[in-house]
Amino acid sequence: MKQYMQQIGKQARQAAQILARTQTSIKNKALEAIAQQIEQQNAPLLAANAKDLEAGKAKGLEAALLDRLALNESRIENMIEGLRQMIALPDPVGEISELSYRPSGIQVGKMRVPLGVVGIIYESRPNVTADAAGLCLKSGNATILRGGSEAIHSNQAIAECISAGLKAARLPSTAVQVIETTDRAVVGQLITMPEYVDVIIPRGGKGLIERISQEARVPVIKHLDGICHTYIDDKADLEKAIAVAYNAKTQRYGTCNTMETLLVAKEIAAQVLPKLAEKYETAGVELRGCPASQALLSNIQAASDEDWDTEYLAPILSIRIVQDLDEAIKHIGLHSSQHSDAIITEDWSRARRFLTEVDSSSVMVNASTRFADGFEYGLGAEIGISTDKFHARGPVGLDGLTSQKFIVLGDGHIRG
Amino acid sequence: MKQYMQQIGKQARQAAQILARTQTSIKNKALEAIAQQIEQQNAPLLAANAKDLEAGKAKGLEAALLDRLALNESRIENMIEGLRQMIALPDPVGEISELSYRPSGIQVGKMRVPLGVVGIIYESRPNVTADAAGLCLKSGNATILRGGSEAIHSNQAIAECISAGLKAARLPSTAVQVIETTDRAVVGQLITMPEYVDVIIPRGGKGLIERISQEARVPVIKHLDGICHTYIDDKADLEKAIAVAYNAKTQRYGTCNTMETLLVAKEIAAQVLPKLAEKYETAGVELRGCPASQALLSNIQAASDEDWDTEYLAPILSIRIVQDLDEAIKHIGLHSSQHSDAIITEDWSRARRFLTEVDSSSVMVNASTRFADGFEYGLGAEIGISTDKFHARGPVGLDGLTSQKFIVLGDGHIRG
Repeated sequence: MKQYMQQIGKQARQAAQILARTQTSIKNKALEAIAQQIEQQNAPLLAANAKDLEAGKAKGLEAALLDRLALNESRIENMIEGLRQMIALPDPVGEISELSYRPSGIQVGKMRVPLGVVGIIYESRPNVTADAAGLCLKSGNATILRGGSEAIHSNQAIAECISAGLKAARLPSTAVQVIETTDRAVVGQLITMPEYVDVIIPRGGKGLIERISQEARVPVIKHLDGICHTYIDDKADLEKAIAVAYNAKTQRYGTCNTMETLLVAKEIAAQVLPKLAEKYETAGVELRGCPASQALLSNIQAASDEDWDTEYLAPILSIRIVQDLDEAIKHIGLHSSQHSDAIITEDWSRARRFLTEVDSSSVMVNASTRFADGFEYGLGAEIGISTDKFHARGPVGLDGLTSQKFIVLGDGHIRG
Repeated sequence: MKQYMQQIGKQARQAAQILARTQTSIKNKALEAIAQQIEQQNAPLLAANAKDLEAGKAKGLEAALLDRLALNESRIENMIEGLRQMIALPDPVGEISELSYRPSGIQVGKMRVPLGVVGIIYESRPNVTADAAGLCLKSGNATILRGGSEAIHSNQAIAECISAGLKAARLPSTAVQVIETTDRAVVGQLITMPEYVDVIIPRGGKGLIERISQEARVPVIKHLDGICHTYIDDKADLEKAIAVAYNAKTQRYGTCNTMETLLVAKEIAAQVLPKLAEKYETAGVELRGCPASQALLSNIQAASDEDWDTEYLAPILSIRIVQDLDEAIKHIGLHSSQHSDAIITEDWSRARRFLTEVDSSSVMVNASTRFADGFEYGLGAEIGISTDKFHARGPVGLDGLTSQKFIVLGDGHIRG
């Protein structure tokens, strides 16, 4: 196993050197060829996926997992569409910035370069195979992909499309390697080879991500909880507050940028909460609140201490009435997962304070937390969302898969 | 020990929250107050240092180590000067960039924020205590400093100055904590508290840095070797080539950006090498070369395989004659420590290729590798040089001690 993974690592490292200097047009050609392969291999892909689904059902996998595992025409179409959108994105590699003259006469600037080899560890969704491979390829990185054992046939089928696409663009097939074995020891090996792997991106449940972060000997770009807050300030515009707080909770329940806790300033609570509660009730959202909010509303249970630290990913919302902005910021500091938090206010100084003092990967004023997303931010696509501060924070797009080296241009300059 | 360090960590985390929102003027006030304290405490500082030196001599520390440990008027002056230069640097915290409208109508941008708590582990140089504390303070980070046991009295004396300076600016004294015990277990604890420490910066010998990287459970900004190359292309301007290659080796021997290997294109070797060798000989530089360079020069020994992978930090230079740019890039790819590598050429396309294809933290054209330095690059000061790719690469200044969060500005925007 160790030998097998080291071989994979060595091959990835070699491919990375080639990818780092591959022209944009060639990378785009490969992306288009992969998209075409997936288009053409529609039937074999669905057949491979049917095998996985059958095995999954036989194993008794739960319905939600089987749903994530399933491919259909529209999901395959999305993979293809995703790859074509990557072609349209500007190539980050080689971008030179901040180039300026120094007093010594040299010019100093930064050039964007690929990280090298990216290891992706994910669970059941087979579309990650194409999405992640495409983003890494566009940013000039070699990829080692390790999907869930339950998706092995689907992933292999997608891997064949990728391999054929790389071949069509005359890129090494080792530029994207999909691990063929379901042996669990693979993961342990992949995350402890700093000589061959530059970064690990785990995508999946919290358990997987925590385990990998614990054991990795390689940097990890990770995303844990999404416990997002919206604070309705007493200087908020009522209509906007209701629209945004409603959208942040109900636009989708299962996403990490969905609001899980609503904070409301005491002074405005009686005006805003009853109206909002009515809307939530109609949408079928269960409310859990502090005593003060219980006093205002009828359709609300008592929130437990745990509720303030829970990512529901469900039509449940905890509500807390706070004294003022200070108490809101304090609550967020204690309970936010530092993913995305918003304030609704028309007060300039409070908005300014909230933006500065809330230490989350996305901080918003008068906007729904549901906007925290690579597409909405204009990154084009995201390989994940980072709740860390190191290297990349928030939605991670192509730039997060690159680094910057310094370039120095002179004309025979020596140091005095 | 564990409890002691966790207490330190907790205090640092609390101080970091205050520092993150501290105005530039207050941070600058603290820096100036620390500088003034060091100025006033000149005599006690020298006395504390004398104690360390005495103990060091009694322990039989080698001369180089004692030299690094020693403080004198001019070194204290440098510490003070360094702190005052930090006052003049722009505050990176809160800087907003890339703010633009998205199709949805929201504005999305990035705001620079401190990393949080920075742990610095260093060896004998006491000036690191003031330098590192100052840079972390200016960038809004809390600092935990762990110096070498041989410098304990000097570090404590500097710590008192820092503490008094923080107090004068009404900042918490826990914003900079200097570990008071020389117990070695401290380091193991400091690098495994991700809940309290956001990044570790080790400064010192390769052994220290490797050990810390191995064992850390926290991101490490590290610098290992500086095996730097200069490649003299056959399209080089002879005069520039000689000036730059001479400067890169001889301007200072013990620094990480000093050239250790000179590569020369076959076609130009006979023109350039004899002249250079003469200059090196005059300067007392020992030459070790490949057979082809030995055939050209008299004052040169045979280089062993090891020489190509050695950071001499001494008046020794290895020389290799290569066929062309391809062979030079290949040699650099195999033997460079990815610190700083330079090409000397007047050929546009070759310079362009070298800049793109050499994967080092600084890549240079027609300039001495000795320029790879935070001051020369205009970063103002550096907390270290990173030979990693993740997060920070090359000289690390204030920006490297920060991260960027996304900010989203709307006017009641909801996601459709």
